[in-house]
Amino acid sequence: MKSSIEHEIKQWMSENRQNAIDLLQRLVMEPSTQGNEAGAQKIVADKLVDMGLAVDVWEDEGQGLEELVKHPYFCSPRTEFNGSPNVVGLWKGCGGGKSLILNGHIDVVPTGERVQWRDDPFSGKIEDGRMYGRGVTDMKGGNIAMLFAIEALQALGVKLKGDVIFQSVVEEESGGSGTLSTVLRGYKADAAIIPEPTQMKVFPKQQGSMWFKIRIKGRSAHGGTRYEGVSAIEKAMLVVEAVRQLEKVRNDRICDPLYKSIPIPIPINIGTIEGGEWPSSVPDRVELKGRMGVAPEEEMGDAKQMLAEALAGIKDEWLLQNPPEIEWFGAQWLPGAVEQDHALMNALVDSYRNILGEEPVIEASPWGTDGGLLAKTAGTPAIVFGPGVTSMAHYPNEYIELDKVFDCAAVVACTMLKWCGVEEGGNTVYTN
Amino acid sequence: MKSSIEHEIKQWMSENRQNAIDLLQRLVMEPSTQGNEAGAQKIVADKLVDMGLAVDVWEDEGQGLEELVKHPYFCSPRTEFNGSPNVVGLWKGCGGGKSLILNGHIDVVPTGERVQWRDDPFSGKIEDGRMYGRGVTDMKGGNIAMLFAIEALQALGVKLKGDVIFQSVVEEESGGSGTLSTVLRGYKADAAIIPEPTQMKVFPKQQGSMWFKIRIKGRSAHGGTRYEGVSAIEKAMLVVEAVRQLEKVRNDRICDPLYKSIPIPIPINIGTIEGGEWPSSVPDRVELKGRMGVAPEEEMGDAKQMLAEALAGIKDEWLLQNPPEIEWFGAQWLPGAVEQDHALMNALVDSYRNILGEEPVIEASPWGTDGGLLAKTAGTPAIVFGPGVTSMAHYPNEYIELDKVFDCAAVVACTMLKWCGVEEGGNTVYTN
Repeated sequence: MKSSIEHEIKQWMSENRQNAIDLLQRLVMEPSTQGNEAGAQKIVADKLVDMGLAVDVWEDEGQGLEELVKHPYFCSPRTEFNGSPNVVGLWKGCGGGKSLILNGHIDVVPTGERVQWRDDPFSGKIEDGRMYGRGVTDMKGGNIAMLFAIEALQALGVKLKGDVIFQSVVEEESGGSGTLSTVLRGYKADAAIIPEPTQMKVFPKQQGSMWFKIRIKGRSAHGGTRYEGVSAIEKAMLVVEAVRQLEKVRNDRICDPLYKSIPIPIPINIGTIEGGEWPSSVPDRVELKGRMGVAPEEEMGDAKQMLAEALAGIKDEWLLQNPPEIEWFGAQWLPGAVEQDHALMNALVDSYRNILGEEPVIEASPWGTDGGLLAKTAGTPAIVFGPGVTSMAHYPNEYIELDKVFDCAAVVACTMLKWCGVEEGGNTVYTN
Repeated sequence: MKSSIEHEIKQWMSENRQNAIDLLQRLVMEPSTQGNEAGAQKIVADKLVDMGLAVDVWEDEGQGLEELVKHPYFCSPRTEFNGSPNVVGLWKGCGGGKSLILNGHIDVVPTGERVQWRDDPFSGKIEDGRMYGRGVTDMKGGNIAMLFAIEALQALGVKLKGDVIFQSVVEEESGGSGTLSTVLRGYKADAAIIPEPTQMKVFPKQQGSMWFKIRIKGRSAHGGTRYEGVSAIEKAMLVVEAVRQLEKVRNDRICDPLYKSIPIPIPINIGTIEGGEWPSSVPDRVELKGRMGVAPEEEMGDAKQMLAEALAGIKDEWLLQNPPEIEWFGAQWLPGAVEQDHALMNALVDSYRNILGEEPVIEASPWGTDGGLLAKTAGTPAIVFGPGVTSMAHYPNEYIELDKVFDCAAVVACTMLKWCGVEEGGNTVYTN
């Protein structure tokens, strides 16, 4: 019976659901903000050991750290990672199949103001089928779905041909140095799934992004004779306008149908503005900070170049003489893309249909993940697909729908069967 | 001989010049920033006593303070003035002449960073005919010029018909509560001269000014889906543009020839901008701070109304639903104007010609003084004319050309003769 394996997976998951919920709750109750990931990583590593995987736990240090920090795609506000281990568990296949990385990050963003949360931000409280807490949706719920998928296959006696490499990494929220460290340690695979909070949408492409500062000069003068000065605020308006024009040019050329329902596929957001010192003085400086979206197939350097050219092209004598300065700072996330007819896409979409009885929504993500880094540095193409609630990521009262965790787990389990292949002789034989 | 009095005044001033320089230096060495005016005021009061004037020294307190603070034109960041006395010296005339207020402020603005000054900011150092120090140009040099003018006439045995009221006030730099206090104490006159640093230009009209904040709302969203939000920075651009348009409308209607060489007679300066929290979030708030120039004959309330209407008239659906908020805050300076054919103008311009042998430059000032307040609250029209270097006011290494102090003093002395009238029987009889 074709449907037997899906049925068995769902059946097993249904019977063992509470164990996964308990594990997720324990994980959420560990406040694994940047620098504080060790407690949560221990829970993950212990679980992997229990599951019989080959477990690798390391902190970046010594020569490995040197290599990491020097890497052209290294991006982090810190250069020491003591107390912030990465964890990898290898479920070795029997051979002859395709390998799969299941990558999720353990770090969570800060909680923000306590007063905005109804309960303790790390409560793990369950109410009406939802679990609450910082990181539950972004992305501990996704990580548990992957673990549970492996556990289900193990329990059902499945022997995969290809390797499955489960990765619980640090630093995704700060630029991806955890995933980069796994790559430098030698981990790669034929493809990857990253269960970031897509709310069960499938994202074969991910927008990259990077942060910029733009500094604009003016010339000070008394406000009563403001014509003797040059207002950096007025010049900043020209810069904002030029950025809007550039955004239009960059988006007009995107014709990928994955973006058809997205008004601005790769936005350039100007997030902050600050300038001038005194109400009655002409402002002699303004600083803008923003985020530039990068198209899935685009090089970061090309996007940077376009911004530089757009600012250099502003037809304003003052700005030509006093060009705005661009600084790329803070975090960046590489874009990523797999073709829509990639075999992992087929496996995932088929599994989705089989498990959930409907077509998945396939889109391009409006934000970057560690997927771009996996593709760029390890040649491991990644699809992003996870159970979390997109709009709750980074927000107070972050939650996840627990049912979605198990829907996702079942889809990922089936996808592993199709992608990695199944060794005959296991208890269950699955053929497409 | 028609020229005798000018000659005698100049002669006496030349002989007694060092006394005035010494007094100015002592005054500059008193750091009379806001709240610290008592030392400098004591020097002034002692001098007035020496000169035989009727001296009135008071701090605002009790009922007087209550009345002051409640006054519709009261404007100060503080409501207690202990240790900040005003000083008035009355040189009583013989009767039958017009009275004249000579008004100058004793408060000086902060020095700013010490490192920007070549010498101690309160050194009073003299070099190449210039005296240096905070407040020497704005406006202790002007105050000494007025004192010296009175002293010269006294020394020459002149008896004026009209009263001369010398005022050394606090708080001009913070909105004029010192001058307002003199008015509430009963001081008024037929006209006034204020020797602010005009660099020997004559300003029958003064631009008023007031400070505003404009708060602009947006709606937050993730930068990767910025189309889901509304950028307060983009909306702020519309506000800046509307302010520019309003400035144009307000200035196009000014046809006063006094403004013919001034590109923007009453500018609206946007001095600071600040908004947004995070590079990759759509900014949901921006705040602008600025200074609105007010025309010499204009009511402050009418100018405020025009700004409100300009912002309400922005054709933007979001801003119509979420109107920008205007707050008038901080300091304000009332505008002021006397007609160009006012008798005090004629007296001043004639005296200038007689003393300096050339035509004075007559313009409208780009900033407010206490003159607007004198006109508005005491019915005392004021002309601004002083020896200080306009561009050095509020700047590091502030200085004055000492020769200008004496040029100004001689012109003011002659002007007193013409305006107040001279009682026959004094040693010198002056007729026009």
